[in-house]
Amino acid sequence: MDRLTIIKVGGKVVEEPESLNALLDKFIKISGYKILVHGGGRAATDMATRLGLETQMVEGRRITDAAMLEVVTMVYGGLVNKKIVAGLQARGCNAIGLTGADLDLIRAVKRPVGDIDYGFVGDIDDINSRELRVLINENVVPVLAPLTHDGKGNLLNTNADTIASRIATELCNYFGTYLFYCFEKKGVLLNPEDENSVIFELNVQLFNQYKEEGIISEGMIPKLETGFRAKRNGVKEVLITNVENIATGRGTRLL
Amino acid sequence: MDRLTIIKVGGKVVEEPESLNALLDKFIKISGYKILVHGGGRAATDMATRLGLETQMVEGRRITDAAMLEVVTMVYGGLVNKKIVAGLQARGCNAIGLTGADLDLIRAVKRPVGDIDYGFVGDIDDINSRELRVLINENVVPVLAPLTHDGKGNLLNTNADTIASRIATELCNYFGTYLFYCFEKKGVLLNPEDENSVIFELNVQLFNQYKEEGIISEGMIPKLETGFRAKRNGVKEVLITNVENIATGRGTRLL
Repeated sequence: MDRLTIIKVGGKVVEEPESLNALLDKFIKISGYKILVHGGGRAATDMATRLGLETQMVEGRRITDAAMLEVVTMVYGGLVNKKIVAGLQARGCNAIGLTGADLDLIRAVKRPVGDIDYGFVGDIDDINSRELRVLINENVVPVLAPLTHDGKGNLLNTNADTIASRIATELCNYFGTYLFYCFEKKGVLLNPEDENSVIFELNVQLFNQYKEEGIISEGMIPKLETGFRAKRNGVKEVLITNVENIATGRGTRLL
Repeated sequence: MDRLTIIKVGGKVVEEPESLNALLDKFIKISGYKILVHGGGRAATDMATRLGLETQMVEGRRITDAAMLEVVTMVYGGLVNKKIVAGLQARGCNAIGLTGADLDLIRAVKRPVGDIDYGFVGDIDDINSRELRVLINENVVPVLAPLTHDGKGNLLNTNADTIASRIATELCNYFGTYLFYCFEKKGVLLNPEDENSVIFELNVQLFNQYKEEGIISEGMIPKLETGFRAKRNGVKEVLITNVENIATGRGTRLL
């Protein structure tokens, strides 16, 4: 099977011109088929602030009312996504920027209101792997914004880590899929103060132990859970790394 | 040759939920292959105002400095485009939202600074008809935002009427292309006060006469010039009409 690498990059990496350029330079060097999934949370928060809207986060997830949905649609689907696409095209990489609404790629269900009303936040229901494969086989590089739709005309705000993981899983019947979570650090750190304390290999048992000990905490927990799920479901490799190492394959490898 | 209809819709039609829904209901009824090209100027101006940016127009064209480019990228490429795509998908129409950067569809050249510096405004250099045909032949409906790129990583603001006209012209070797400019009125009016004074057929001679007499003026002049150019270059039919009539084919037909 051909190799397909799915790279998820966080907001911080794609929002600064310098780090974005560094990412795109590295990204085009990855061999085989590729998909880029990006965040953009900081840019959305900045834009919301400029528009006088307050950002409210619960457990790392953005409360997305109608006004905030407009902000994330603009910022993720327009500003961040199209800058990446133009940057890749300038490097000779045939990128296409997409949301889950385009080509009906990702259907989601609006999260039911429980203790918390997340608003227009979507949990993935279905990935349209056929349309993705048509693009990939045309040597097109999909660049996915973290937006989905409900099939009834509504866009929904969906976590980028989850989108990347689900796509890697859905496509592993057709490609050998590699999932790289790319952020500012070299990997998962044993000591957050020490940039070089990277945990090179992590299994579920160790993950649970580190979680209990508080070594792994906050946003890293759902990211790793999503990664382990992908690994369990047939993704060949799941790696947590930084831009510098997306081509070398160094970082935290999930076992 | 198969029929391909290129519909260009102005900002006013796509920015209000009610008129947008009316448009999409009509649009899906058009038989044969379809492309939708949209504007979004009013929404961009509103967003600019909310962000404390002043909008400056010269002869109907927006002066697009770096801050305004971010606004149009967000509003055209994100907000307006993705709302249309989600609305079409909800109607079972397999839409994909694109800018000229996606798939390298439309390359443009930044307009040289003359008496006026338009900033990041692009004049079309090249339409990538191959990629558009791949999509069309897959029965995908491209929804194009009025943004292009320069191939060096920069997005550019480009007039939607011109994009629609150039695409209709480029594709007329492969399809019988029909170009519909859709706006609030039933067609070009002989008397702007009388909604029913539609000029049903217009040739270049009559156009020049009406222009001299001031019957046709302002924004309608470049729109019609663009339309006549398309007609001259092989587009089967160019029609100026409203949402109500995009399926009936009534309006002002260019000869």
